[in-house]
Amino acid sequence: MRRSCVIAAVIAAVGIGSTFEAAAQQRKPEDNIKMRKAAFTVMSWNFGVLAAMAKGQRPYDQAEAVKRAETVSLVSHLPFEGFPKGSESGLDTRALPEVWSNPDKFKTNQERLQAETAKLVQAAKSGDAGQLKSQVGATAKACSNCHEDFRRK
Amino acid sequence: MRRSCVIAAVIAAVGIGSTFEAAAQQRKPEDNIKMRKAAFTVMSWNFGVLAAMAKGQRPYDQAEAVKRAETVSLVSHLPFEGFPKGSESGLDTRALPEVWSNPDKFKTNQERLQAETAKLVQAAKSGDAGQLKSQVGATAKACSNCHEDFRRK
Repeated sequence: MRRSCVIAAVIAAVGIGSTFEAAAQQRKPEDNIKMRKAAFTVMSWNFGVLAAMAKGQRPYDQAEAVKRAETVSLVSHLPFEGFPKGSESGLDTRALPEVWSNPDKFKTNQERLQAETAKLVQAAKSGDAGQLKSQVGATAKACSNCHEDFRRK
Repeated sequence: MRRSCVIAAVIAAVGIGSTFEAAAQQRKPEDNIKMRKAAFTVMSWNFGVLAAMAKGQRPYDQAEAVKRAETVSLVSHLPFEGFPKGSESGLDTRALPEVWSNPDKFKTNQERLQAETAKLVQAAKSGDAGQLKSQVGATAKACSNCHEDFRRK
């Protein structure tokens, strides 16, 4: 198996497109909210392992880092179909109205996250703990950047 | 990109192993419960699209089916690190005590699910709607089979 094909495969597998939006539109608002929160939970769990490595709270382990980064990268493509118009409320959600009033900026944030998580995979594969640490920081920044404008405190 | 490498890549990326269990052990029971439920939610969302195709509730679309099947396959590897000993309670959960009292059977069910979701990708790629429908049924059976013994009604 060629490692290089993983990312391309994953992007192909879970890419966000019109069909995904169409699928989300048919769901109830609460199902959209539940799914997007679930995808963020799974992403956060796996990213947490990398963050712990970056902070020295757990030993650096390249194979583990690669697994976690690949999971984070692919799951970073999953939540966003869960934000169709009409899913502003219906279940507890911290999503701000700006998600729907400023979709272009929200989309830019989404793409930035996905670009950073793709780089996270490369950083993990490099085997350089410093490079991983730096990219964990850049990825965390993409998360918090979006939270600042689009998620209630 | 060779399509054939997707599954192998995904298995490599998210395989369940001792490192995953070690990671889960360090989490609070409620975090484990939240994560495993979240992973099942994401899997169910994506499987739901395939089930709708199989039932004729939405048009058959091979590209969409392949994307969804690949997502289901990779996410089917994520929940199970969220069942370490000690995570029997702490947050609302339908997991039965048998998860921990009969781990071998639970593991067999997990592996059956993952085998069926791998076949689901192949069925989606075949371009044969009948084959997809049949494998959606086999996968649903792996889900319900495990629910019967390991999930509260």
